Amino acid sequence: MQVHNFNAGPSILPNEVLYQASKGILDFEGSGMSILEVSHRGKEFTPVMEEARALVRELMQLDDDFEVLFLHGGASTQFMQVPFNLLNSGETAAYTDTGVWAAKAIKEARLFGEVDVVCSGKDDQYHHIPKNFSVPPQARYLHITTNNTIYGTQWASMPDPGIPLVADMSSDILSRQLDFNRFSLIYAGAQKNTGTAGVALVMVRKSFLGEARRSIPTILDYRVHIQNGSVFNTPPVFAIYIAMLTLRWLKAQGGAAALEKINERKAKLLYDEIDNNPLFHCPVAVEDRSRMNVCFVATRPELETPFLDFCKKENIVGIKGHRSSGGFRASLYNAMPEESVQVLVEAMREFARQHGEG
Amino acid sequence: MQVHNFNAGPSILPNEVLYQASKGILDFEGSGMSILEVSHRGKEFTPVMEEARALVRELMQLDDDFEVLFLHGGASTQFMQVPFNLLNSGETAAYTDTGVWAAKAIKEARLFGEVDVVCSGKDDQYHHIPKNFSVPPQARYLHITTNNTIYGTQWASMPDPGIPLVADMSSDILSRQLDFNRFSLIYAGAQKNTGTAGVALVMVRKSFLGEARRSIPTILDYRVHIQNGSVFNTPPVFAIYIAMLTLRWLKAQGGAAALEKINERKAKLLYDEIDNNPLFHCPVAVEDRSRMNVCFVATRPELETPFLDFCKKENIVGIKGHRSSGGFRASLYNAMPEESVQVLVEAMREFARQHGEG
Repeated sequence: MQVHNFNAGPSILPNEVLYQASKGILDFEGSGMSILEVSHRGKEFTPVMEEARALVRELMQLDDDFEVLFLHGGASTQFMQVPFNLLNSGETAAYTDTGVWAAKAIKEARLFGEVDVVCSGKDDQYHHIPKNFSVPPQARYLHITTNNTIYGTQWASMPDPGIPLVADMSSDILSRQLDFNRFSLIYAGAQKNTGTAGVALVMVRKSFLGEARRSIPTILDYRVHIQNGSVFNTPPVFAIYIAMLTLRWLKAQGGAAALEKINERKAKLLYDEIDNNPLFHCPVAVEDRSRMNVCFVATRPELETPFLDFCKKENIVGIKGHRSSGGFRASLYNAMPEESVQVLVEAMREFARQHGEG
Repeated sequence: MQVHNFNAGPSILPNEVLYQASKGILDFEGSGMSILEVSHRGKEFTPVMEEARALVRELMQLDDDFEVLFLHGGASTQFMQVPFNLLNSGETAAYTDTGVWAAKAIKEARLFGEVDVVCSGKDDQYHHIPKNFSVPPQARYLHITTNNTIYGTQWASMPDPGIPLVADMSSDILSRQLDFNRFSLIYAGAQKNTGTAGVALVMVRKSFLGEARRSIPTILDYRVHIQNGSVFNTPPVFAIYIAMLTLRWLKAQGGAAALEKINERKAKLLYDEIDNNPLFHCPVAVEDRSRMNVCFVATRPELETPFLDFCKKENIVGIKGHRSSGGFRASLYNAMPEESVQVLVEAMREFARQHGEG
């Protein structure tokens, strides 16, 4: 059965990755053991971890000050781990409020220091990315959420705050070309563009970490993970293996620059249909529209459920909007083929025809 | 190639689990999607999570006060998460020092409150489990590590401290029959007896949690995970799936009582050989010997490396002792077949014959 998987995360993975993983579960590289059964410090897994870290460095073109870590947990763990390591009591961090996930990051940071929310899109139901805001120059860092999965917004260009920039890139990492060296810390749950659930990528500048002025539980201390090459404790071996396979696939596609072009095409195909089809509407400001998560609504609300049913029959999966915002959401992560986007567009057209709008 | 996998963790899994998982990676239950691609809140994964939690409850025969959680991270995360939730500043917790992992738990607890180390096996290189110790009655809880992987010791019977009992059961959970209801909190990394790396099982009494007197980061707050049925954030979906399949297998074997008998037989087979073979010696006090991790040394140190090489030729994998203690360690977790233990015993005999001790 051919399924068109628009899930927001965990989400679609390249077929090549799934075939490799399925084989690796039965016999990893001729070892006679499953990838699930090998030691995390042994000769089977060590090259996987090393390749995964090297691929991140290469694909993001990170300078030598950066360390690449694969850590337990997802972005929700990083929401507190970032300020635990970086925001001393009495210090201020600047945060941008661009949605539910940004707000969760803000909530956790407040447990550790002062938080200056320098802008918010809340009054507009987060349908745009705030533009004109000022950042206090003494703040420890500015935190942004580069792509907002629930609302379908994305920072088209990065702010230049004059202080260290920290980014949650969970839903658009390596989906477009960026100068990643402009950041001081980048984190991302792997389950959208770079793998499956159960591991977070953390890219952090050693010079940014410096000395912490509080006691940090060992497992939450970035410096401990750096000293131990991401194997301080038993890491999430399989999730790192999937990330490595996915990163290999991203490299084979041509890396971030090539994927950006493909992702632009996919997003344009779908936004064009939404803008031209009288049954659908995208409430997001045009300049802030996400290429990763296309959020839209039915112009005739009574057609929302029928359209979901229609999609189901076409094997189009995962386009229901987030439970907090409703409507539809089609996630177009790196692994999503253009053909599946075309299938969705055709379904929208056919649905419109069936409802007298063809 | 038939490999005899004595790895200490990540470690051997049942073949049935690996076959199921390999299929689920390609097409999960006829959904047309991989288990890696489905939503953690969708109709595919929800029954997996529910079955995993129900199986833990059933196999451990937990009473209704217990909640069963599957959380990101392993035991190393629990070392700090337990006192973060349960040890208020100014309160005392009692800890038993039975090895490196117990000592790590102690180190983290000290960040949160007073720690009373009520006994230690350190003077004896942790070759026994301390017996006569007293526990301060006002302590919040007593923490024990039921099995010590590095030294091959195991609590044969549980202490009865008169205060809540907290246990790290990472390396022997569900390998023997216990009255789990005597505990207030039990945690275990899954990668030894109940699955693969990347998830921890936490069984905690609601009545034990009560009110915390400090701010806890949301992702570390057990109460949040209880309220959200272990899906507060995207959980480690695949690791939970493997745990569920492994728990199903454990149930099919007859559960903890049946596995205890098998594990006793396997351990006896190997300890008998060590005690009878002049080339090998087990330094652990007989009454405290672990049925999960059998640690032993060569009586002639110059034969340590030759024996490891000999095992390699016999496809016996993972019997090198932990880097901190040396010697040999054979881990006999639930999924380890008796046949593999027999192969190891035969190898020890043959090796002795080759060295004039046959």
